[in-house]
Amino acid sequence: MISRSRARAAIGLDLGGSTLTGLLVDETGRVLARRRRATPRGQGPETVLEAMREEAAGLLAAAPPDLCVAGLGAGVAGPVDAVRGVCLFSPNLGWRDVEVAAYFRQAFDLPVLVDNDVRVATLGEGWVGAAKSYRTFITLTVGTGIGSGVVLDGRLWPGPGHSAGEIGHIPMKIGPGAPLCGCGRRGCLEALASGTAIRREARLVVERGEPTVLAEVRATTGDITARDVTEAARTGDAVARRIIEEAADHLGTGIATAVNLFNPEAVIVGGGVAGAWDLLSPVVERAVAERAFPPNLAFLRGVFPAALGEDAGAVGAASLVLAPLERPAAGDGGEVGRR
Amino acid sequence: MISRSRARAAIGLDLGGSTLTGLLVDETGRVLARRRRATPRGQGPETVLEAMREEAAGLLAAAPPDLCVAGLGAGVAGPVDAVRGVCLFSPNLGWRDVEVAAYFRQAFDLPVLVDNDVRVATLGEGWVGAAKSYRTFITLTVGTGIGSGVVLDGRLWPGPGHSAGEIGHIPMKIGPGAPLCGCGRRGCLEALASGTAIRREARLVVERGEPTVLAEVRATTGDITARDVTEAARTGDAVARRIIEEAADHLGTGIATAVNLFNPEAVIVGGGVAGAWDLLSPVVERAVAERAFPPNLAFLRGVFPAALGEDAGAVGAASLVLAPLERPAAGDGGEVGRR
Repeated sequence: MISRSRARAAIGLDLGGSTLTGLLVDETGRVLARRRRATPRGQGPETVLEAMREEAAGLLAAAPPDLCVAGLGAGVAGPVDAVRGVCLFSPNLGWRDVEVAAYFRQAFDLPVLVDNDVRVATLGEGWVGAAKSYRTFITLTVGTGIGSGVVLDGRLWPGPGHSAGEIGHIPMKIGPGAPLCGCGRRGCLEALASGTAIRREARLVVERGEPTVLAEVRATTGDITARDVTEAARTGDAVARRIIEEAADHLGTGIATAVNLFNPEAVIVGGGVAGAWDLLSPVVERAVAERAFPPNLAFLRGVFPAALGEDAGAVGAASLVLAPLERPAAGDGGEVGRR
Repeated sequence: MISRSRARAAIGLDLGGSTLTGLLVDETGRVLARRRRATPRGQGPETVLEAMREEAAGLLAAAPPDLCVAGLGAGVAGPVDAVRGVCLFSPNLGWRDVEVAAYFRQAFDLPVLVDNDVRVATLGEGWVGAAKSYRTFITLTVGTGIGSGVVLDGRLWPGPGHSAGEIGHIPMKIGPGAPLCGCGRRGCLEALASGTAIRREARLVVERGEPTVLAEVRATTGDITARDVTEAARTGDAVARRIIEEAADHLGTGIATAVNLFNPEAVIVGGGVAGAWDLLSPVVERAVAERAFPPNLAFLRGVFPAALGEDAGAVGAASLVLAPLERPAAGDGGEVGRR
């Protein structure tokens, strides 16, 4: 009898502050099965890990019998020690030192790899998404906050303290008048260009009585979301458009800074605000063109929207198991380090 | 007869815009011989390369006969393709596509390695200088401009386009009122915190008639240097002190940005302005403490002055031959990349 090597796949879990996504992904990055639910809130890590285990078990049950499920990868919001598979701290989840990898190893007797949610989304985009042609790239996830992942010469750069690539916390405005950031400081990029920042500005313009449809939105719904602002901007509301353009301008300055420091081939923008990429991109691209160092700008192939949407994190989590991001070195001197 | 392996050494050359330094350096980083002269100006690359060759030949002649000179390393101002050993462009030297490595290989029949001058100074500080205990660190060279070198997990990160770590060109101030930078853009860190920026501010305050001893300096010498400003600040001149503190505050913001993005263990500041480190450091350290992302700040061991002075570049150039910067991985997860 001739043995045929079985097709391999992996389970990818992406635990965000609001959504838990589980995918069964094959070796080519194709999604074979998908489960999604709201992240359980206001409960301890055990409840959340149990919900993740249920998703993974459901995906395992859905796998065809001739498929070899090679392991489980998980992305978790907050700083993660990827060596030990421990979530060090997650303000959104209320976690501290949660041993995620150990939990799933015990539950499934499979190889388990865990990393930060934004970093796994970066791996997903690098594997089969918007960055698949690049060895050195940065992803920004612009939503409630601004997260970021950095890939240098085909490898994630998490930083020795697990917190490299904090593009969201680049100091952009200095002084007591700068808006407060979620990190407790003032004037970070995240405080100027995230969905939260857009929402805060929208409330301020309504309180100041500026002429905008956002006042009606607030009167009707009791609140204004970042999506309300982008929708108002699309319909031609000048105030909403100004808010979006100011956020996009700051985002472009932050991207220019990261381009100057990392010298990437590409920057990928994902997350909720990226859903308004048609509105943001002209301003972002102009700001990058004006403010990136000329040789770095000349080297940059572009700033692109993410391609995998809500699947990016779980696809990247599966890639922790299936696909080392390493690619053959380009002929143009793409090697890290000493030559 | 028992053969004894001979002690090894290398020649390190550092070609700056104003000074050419040549060192004979042993395997421990000790300087065995030193030659220094002004960089020939206003002449073609052949004249400068010939001057470098003379220095190297002099150092070779000075080497004891039982010493094995294992090769020659050179650092050159401007973007360098380290793989090919070609200086791509050097505005200060007026060079474009100068084949430095090929020239010295032909001249000496020795292994030759070439890199950018700031990157080799970074290697020097990492080998036997202020960064010798760190695997992930950044150096800034603050002089006429602001150069920078980035070492991630024991390896230089030059960037695939040879221009990573352009900390001097972080966009700090936006708009037509921001000061012009040498790169042609406005509001870069270099335009706010370099020796050139300090000098420009000093001239402006004198032209505005502010009460400062710098007015007398200008009346006496016809000009004001950055050193004049630091000396005036040291004697208690309030205007000079304000200029230095504003530059230091911008420098601290730039360092905080780099700390947020690279997550280094240490930042090393060298160059001419670093000679006034006693004046700068309190302001720089406060700005970094206020503006770096808290986890990255907690991980940072400190911002330190460079230790090797004018020898850093040539020591680091010798280290291209003698000492790979690689060090045993720390136990704390200091590995680059996927885990």
